[in-house]
Amino acid sequence: MARPVDPRTREKLLDAVKRLSLKRGFGGTTVDAICEKAQVSKGSFFHYFGTKDEAADAALERFAGALREAFATAPFWKLEDPQQRLAGYVEFAADVCRSSVLRDGCLVGALAMELSDAAPGVRKKCAAIFDGWARSLKELLDEAFALQRPKADTQALARLFVVTLEGALLIARAFRDPTVVDQSLQHYARYLQLQLEAKKGDRR
Amino acid sequence: MARPVDPRTREKLLDAVKRLSLKRGFGGTTVDAICEKAQVSKGSFFHYFGTKDEAADAALERFAGALREAFATAPFWKLEDPQQRLAGYVEFAADVCRSSVLRDGCLVGALAMELSDAAPGVRKKCAAIFDGWARSLKELLDEAFALQRPKADTQALARLFVVTLEGALLIARAFRDPTVVDQSLQHYARYLQLQLEAKKGDRR
Repeated sequence: MARPVDPRTREKLLDAVKRLSLKRGFGGTTVDAICEKAQVSKGSFFHYFGTKDEAADAALERFAGALREAFATAPFWKLEDPQQRLAGYVEFAADVCRSSVLRDGCLVGALAMELSDAAPGVRKKCAAIFDGWARSLKELLDEAFALQRPKADTQALARLFVVTLEGALLIARAFRDPTVVDQSLQHYARYLQLQLEAKKGDRR
Repeated sequence: MARPVDPRTREKLLDAVKRLSLKRGFGGTTVDAICEKAQVSKGSFFHYFGTKDEAADAALERFAGALREAFATAPFWKLEDPQQRLAGYVEFAADVCRSSVLRDGCLVGALAMELSDAAPGVRKKCAAIFDGWARSLKELLDEAFALQRPKADTQALARLFVVTLEGALLIARAFRDPTVVDQSLQHYARYLQLQLEAKKGDRR
């Protein structure tokens, strides 16, 4: 018997993919388990996704979209001073890490770790998302460093932010200590500050 | 027919656990696949390990042991100046990341990411290994900071090293760009240097 289409079915499935992947890994998560968690039929799953990898791709897209949305409407963009805006970005990232989006871990980091070799499409997707984060921060770094340290390698500093964020989320999970994320991002902000205070023309 | 015991069987199995976990995740790795990779029988596997999780634990122990051994015999310990010794540690870590031990990724990071929620024993083991790394570095940080910045939070700085290392290994894999590790550790070393140059008594 055909059931009425529930527009939230796809969302429920993607939410289940995220939760289960963060809880026990993507490899340890079967389509059956995803359907059971989402309380939808296997037929529904395959209506939306041809394969489990396709569902991972869609879950990554949804996850990155939620983060983009959170950042797009964040208050720090209104700060006029470029250095304050930059500091605001890092602080806001720490807030987001405490929010429901990232509290249980980062789906991009988890899938990148697990599937980098096994699923090239997923790896590329993760890399593109990380790159997007780095690029959005690089703009703020360029503005903040323009006057004092115009030669600073802001691309490398932006990538260091993603490195610090992902490393901190991983170590926080291993230690069951969410303060690792805050502390690590504070160190990152402090590093930027020390770099800004360093001698002009110093390229290190 | 009973086969002669090969003392390398356990090693082969642990090597297969490591390689397969890094390639496609621990959840995506079956005991059959481990045995096939190691070219040993399933009976041999269960001779050494009661469960797959037990094999993960032993693989972590072996992995951490290889790193401990590499660090124990490293030349930087002979440097007399504490700040040079500290810099030597970070440089040596970058070298190890290029070596066969870590080239394909960090088993501790991979299992911590995937099994933090699903396998509490594995999570605790990973946390203990990360903690051991941080503690060994903290001693060097204490010596290097003793004169110039005795109030610096060396424990947090030591943890930041593990955060940076693990984040860098993850991002390097996602980007297929091993230079991320070197660059990130250079930034970490530069941060320490800027902290050492900062005003005495400054606790930030």
